Amino acid sequence: MSEQVLDSGSPITVVVDGETREVPGGSTAADLYTDNRDVVVAHVNDTLKDLSTPLTDGDTVTRVLISDPEGLEVLRHSTAHVMAQAVQELKQEAKLGIGPYVTDGFYFDFDVEEAFTPEDLKAIEKRMQKIINTTQSFRRRVVTPDEAVAEMAEEPYKLELIGLVHGPGSGSEGSQGGEVESAAEGASQEVGAGELTIYDNVDRKSGEIVWRDLCRGPHLPNTKLIGNGFALMRSAAAYWRGSEKNKQLQRIYGTAWPTKDELKAYKDRLAEAERRDHRRLGTALDLFSFPDDIGSGLAVFHPRGGLIRMEMENLSREQHVKAGYSFVNTPHITKSNLFERSGHLGFYKDGMYPPMHMDEEVDAAGNVTKQGADYYLKPMNCPMHNLVFNSRGRSYRELPLRIFEFGTVYRNEKSGVVHGLTRARGFTQDDAHIYCTREQMKDELSRTLQFVLDLLTAYGLTDFYLELSTRDPEKSIGDDATWEEATNTLAEVAQESGLELVPDPEGAAFYGPKISVQAKDAIGRTWQMSTIQLDFFMPDRFELEYTAADGTRQRPVMIHRALFGSIERFFGVLTEHYAGAFPAWLSPEQVRAIPVADAFDDYLRDVVDRLRTAGVRAELDASSDRFPKKIRTASKDKVPFVLIAGGDDVDAGAVSFRYRDGSQENGVPVEEAIARITAHVQNRVNQDPRPSAVAEDPSVGEAPGSTEA
Amino acid sequence: MSEQVLDSGSPITVVVDGETREVPGGSTAADLYTDNRDVVVAHVNDTLKDLSTPLTDGDTVTRVLISDPEGLEVLRHSTAHVMAQAVQELKQEAKLGIGPYVTDGFYFDFDVEEAFTPEDLKAIEKRMQKIINTTQSFRRRVVTPDEAVAEMAEEPYKLELIGLVHGPGSGSEGSQGGEVESAAEGASQEVGAGELTIYDNVDRKSGEIVWRDLCRGPHLPNTKLIGNGFALMRSAAAYWRGSEKNKQLQRIYGTAWPTKDELKAYKDRLAEAERRDHRRLGTALDLFSFPDDIGSGLAVFHPRGGLIRMEMENLSREQHVKAGYSFVNTPHITKSNLFERSGHLGFYKDGMYPPMHMDEEVDAAGNVTKQGADYYLKPMNCPMHNLVFNSRGRSYRELPLRIFEFGTVYRNEKSGVVHGLTRARGFTQDDAHIYCTREQMKDELSRTLQFVLDLLTAYGLTDFYLELSTRDPEKSIGDDATWEEATNTLAEVAQESGLELVPDPEGAAFYGPKISVQAKDAIGRTWQMSTIQLDFFMPDRFELEYTAADGTRQRPVMIHRALFGSIERFFGVLTEHYAGAFPAWLSPEQVRAIPVADAFDDYLRDVVDRLRTAGVRAELDASSDRFPKKIRTASKDKVPFVLIAGGDDVDAGAVSFRYRDGSQENGVPVEEAIARITAHVQNRVNQDPRPSAVAEDPSVGEAPGSTEA
Repeated sequence: MSEQVLDSGSPITVVVDGETREVPGGSTAADLYTDNRDVVVAHVNDTLKDLSTPLTDGDTVTRVLISDPEGLEVLRHSTAHVMAQAVQELKQEAKLGIGPYVTDGFYFDFDVEEAFTPEDLKAIEKRMQKIINTTQSFRRRVVTPDEAVAEMAEEPYKLELIGLVHGPGSGSEGSQGGEVESAAEGASQEVGAGELTIYDNVDRKSGEIVWRDLCRGPHLPNTKLIGNGFALMRSAAAYWRGSEKNKQLQRIYGTAWPTKDELKAYKDRLAEAERRDHRRLGTALDLFSFPDDIGSGLAVFHPRGGLIRMEMENLSREQHVKAGYSFVNTPHITKSNLFERSGHLGFYKDGMYPPMHMDEEVDAAGNVTKQGADYYLKPMNCPMHNLVFNSRGRSYRELPLRIFEFGTVYRNEKSGVVHGLTRARGFTQDDAHIYCTREQMKDELSRTLQFVLDLLTAYGLTDFYLELSTRDPEKSIGDDATWEEATNTLAEVAQESGLELVPDPEGAAFYGPKISVQAKDAIGRTWQMSTIQLDFFMPDRFELEYTAADGTRQRPVMIHRALFGSIERFFGVLTEHYAGAFPAWLSPEQVRAIPVADAFDDYLRDVVDRLRTAGVRAELDASSDRFPKKIRTASKDKVPFVLIAGGDDVDAGAVSFRYRDGSQENGVPVEEAIARITAHVQNRVNQDPRPSAVAEDPSVGEAPGSTEA
Repeated sequence: MSEQVLDSGSPITVVVDGETREVPGGSTAADLYTDNRDVVVAHVNDTLKDLSTPLTDGDTVTRVLISDPEGLEVLRHSTAHVMAQAVQELKQEAKLGIGPYVTDGFYFDFDVEEAFTPEDLKAIEKRMQKIINTTQSFRRRVVTPDEAVAEMAEEPYKLELIGLVHGPGSGSEGSQGGEVESAAEGASQEVGAGELTIYDNVDRKSGEIVWRDLCRGPHLPNTKLIGNGFALMRSAAAYWRGSEKNKQLQRIYGTAWPTKDELKAYKDRLAEAERRDHRRLGTALDLFSFPDDIGSGLAVFHPRGGLIRMEMENLSREQHVKAGYSFVNTPHITKSNLFERSGHLGFYKDGMYPPMHMDEEVDAAGNVTKQGADYYLKPMNCPMHNLVFNSRGRSYRELPLRIFEFGTVYRNEKSGVVHGLTRARGFTQDDAHIYCTREQMKDELSRTLQFVLDLLTAYGLTDFYLELSTRDPEKSIGDDATWEEATNTLAEVAQESGLELVPDPEGAAFYGPKISVQAKDAIGRTWQMSTIQLDFFMPDRFELEYTAADGTRQRPVMIHRALFGSIERFFGVLTEHYAGAFPAWLSPEQVRAIPVADAFDDYLRDVVDRLRTAGVRAELDASSDRFPKKIRTASKDKVPFVLIAGGDDVDAGAVSFRYRDGSQENGVPVEEAIARITAHVQNRVNQDPRPSAVAEDPSVGEAPGSTEA
């Protein structure tokens, strides 16, 4: 593509947002949008460019608003530059790492002597606002590698990046894992594989270059457009290029939005997410912990969390029994042979715990008289389920054979990416492998997808879309034709479901493509839940066979599926979805009975006993706390049914309901109260129990039918 | 004790079986029992002695019959000698290891070039019978260590034993583990800590010594008393002194009984045990397997076994919920810190899998920048439950806190002692830890014992006694007084249960004494099932505390209890107890419907559907097999309810029941059949369903109400 500037005299023809226009030669994209300050970058012939880009005859230009996804990315990238400029103005010795945009914001890494303090961040924010207000323009400049090296002589990390991309052996060094990937992505925002560019920040008044950075761009036209919708969020240590072998830099995370109001809305969303954070709620509601003595990413479920988990498992177990699944149990460890055969040691070793070497025998002279074996913790259950399939001859009459296990697996996640229950090192999959014929495959996939959606719905998630993950040629076994057939079959099944389908290129596991069900939670966040994978290769590796109706030996197809993903992860997602206010059937304590005064203890104790007999988890708060305090405690504990009794209730043989939203319903006859609660729990109703007819009454601690306040 | 022989002239006074008698000086014990050939050894002043022992004035003599437990041991020990003599007569080069009696028999180890073949064993048996028939007497002879060394010059293993006990450093070498213990016990039958003795086999006619062995004795008076109630059972390799570092010897196992009839009865019992062997039934009924690819002692439960296991767990879960247990979940691995604190790495390391070293970070120069950690598979759940207790402050109001988990643990059992499901390397404990006050302790122990007995009964075990395992001072933590208090408390609880109580000295775990419930199975064998341990020490090590009613901080007492022992072991025991014919509620297939002819398929399919709707696991055998074959298959599969339908049944709207004992009950209306089966399953009845009123009809394959045979 030519970027040759024509004489400003001769007009050129360009297509602007679908409309053909004639503009003066030498026009830039900016000239097209002088009436719309919200246009901050533009696609020129499908490449995102600065507005200052000179146009050539025949160019197609499409505007990008600051509020468009790409506009937001550019806003955040430019804000990162301003932050780096502010940091270097405040700390001359700071050396620059990379500074990319990320989801909802940006970060920049700095090599500095000491970690940034909250006061540092405030000072940097203030300096940023000053830079923004002076309206510096971002100016793009193409440089040769030699020029880049000369200009960046004081920035050792930038020099390293120039050397990586444009020096000898460039592009040869692979990297993997969560943080490293993001670092690689970040670096590519700095230095592309094409020409090298430097962006200068130019002072509007003096025309002087006040700061510069090696950067691919594009950027906003000037700093003024950043406005005041930005904030610095936190700082943390980060290894240069994501590798533990490199030096630790200091990273500052920030966010940026087109307006102050949008910034505030974002901060509110963060606060809501923080309020719902399952790690916080796990402690507050005494559900689980991650004891230091045990190690990173290994959860311990406390009695209250254990109860929720048991209820989750009970429903899953019941539904799997009904759907014709067979239940098996397999060990958590195995000799290496099995994972060599399955390909895990070839393709997945980095994700596995190191081996335990066992059973070696040595004689008195130190000679090995019996070879030992390496035992591995299993990262997946599939190889073991294949052994169950292979434990005896199979007939077509047994297919589809659906083998299910609550199988606990262990994966060596880097400690940097471990995150509460949603990314743990040890977790229990509700894992099944379905063995079927090629003819049964599509129908079985459709049934499985429907089963998955029904079951997720039973837990209260109702808003789904699908993702189709396809082959990563670098990390997969098998041939192209088979991958294609498997991928097409999954795509058909996904399309027939009527749900939205989003592609996920190269996201498949090494043995086959997958559909994953993405569920939206109560505040609109998306979680990857269930996965359904189609696999033609493992059956080959394990030489799985069944006897067909015609007596021939045939190879079955294998479907891998996990519905929760893992129980731990699903537990975490449900905790956030419900903000800890679980539906009654999942609640560790379903009913708390609170007497208005001690005198009504016995009356409520009887109600509690009757509820318990009916299988309801009910408790009486007979503590010495006063009534309003007891109400507050029940609210804090998020108990779905609070039953209150005072004098009027006792006289009427009734109780009063207090719901989690603070509303109250007085004078419900005890019989009816018990029947209502029992039905609500037994039917596993996910909605909050408050009948819509009842008026809201948010006053805390007001005692119904009582002379005592 | 003096063994000086008095002049034969002067009579001496001895107490013979409680009766004071005067006998001639120089009398031996044998002289007292010339009229009773069944007396084969005797206690002389509480020590078991040969009958040839000369008596001294004042001795107390108590006879031991060949059928007494000690008589049987001596019979078997003498038979072992005869076997060794026979082996050395047939293979002069065979060197002797040890040859002790064991439960129901004996063995002897030999250093020979090649393993013994079944033909060898037959030839040895034949030669033994010849030796027995020639009536050689066993003659005891005291020797000095030097004499023993001279006489055993050709027997290197005997020389080693002499050196161990009487040489420098004798008794200093400890040994542990299953096989080694038995070897140590075996060796002590050869060489005691006291005087050294050799037993000569003396030919009756010639008076010549035809064979000899270093041995403590005692022995039968002569070989003739062995009779023909002995047999050699099998041979196997065994390390000298049980250590893998030593040479492998060849061991021959034999059995010996006072009569041929008793030998036959023993072999019948073995055959019955073999018929019930859970490993055989596990394969025959497709319940579980131990795949070579996974490794020794690690079971995989197949769908049919998985169903039984799920039913076992369901009942246990329900009962634990009712009994007020809290359910937790903890990881299978932890950093070493936890097991250092608990004492497991100090006292139990040999029983643990080796560590996985993780999380170490190394910089480019190879320097460790972050220390890693050793992760261990848990051999027990208690330390993790302590972390749950400690996860927040506890009040006396929460006690007793009963924390339950189906916790899978891994123990490095030597491959030699691994045995099917009953001694596995990985197994799931139904494990609970109860935290209570000192005052609650005894009541809680009693409740726990009753809970355990009730639950075992619910699975069909009904015949129990208790064992009280007390401290092993070599392998335990804590002080004497605390051990004594704990032991006394357990003893009281055990006594109050009214069950028989048997002591098990030094059988306790390192942290506290235990009661174990021993259950007898259907053929009278005893299995150690549930254990209840009282522990004052772990709470100290973990600094467990609760706030007492008076506001002070107090240390709780801890009770460890597992009811099944492990699910795997209990599964194995139940399989043997029921000989695979599980009660209907535990059966993977509860009903099989078999049409007399294809024409009745649809009729029975409807019955099967109705049973399934009622939650019963029912299958229709619509295969192409003929009716009698289907009946035989159902019998082989041990299905508790077989429903048959022929023309008469269809006309009457009925089915016919066929029970596992072969009896049949015809013309049961379908409604009644469904109701009866459903109730039987739902009530978890352990008895076989056949109503006692129904006459036995063992003919297989006779079709009821049908014109087709």
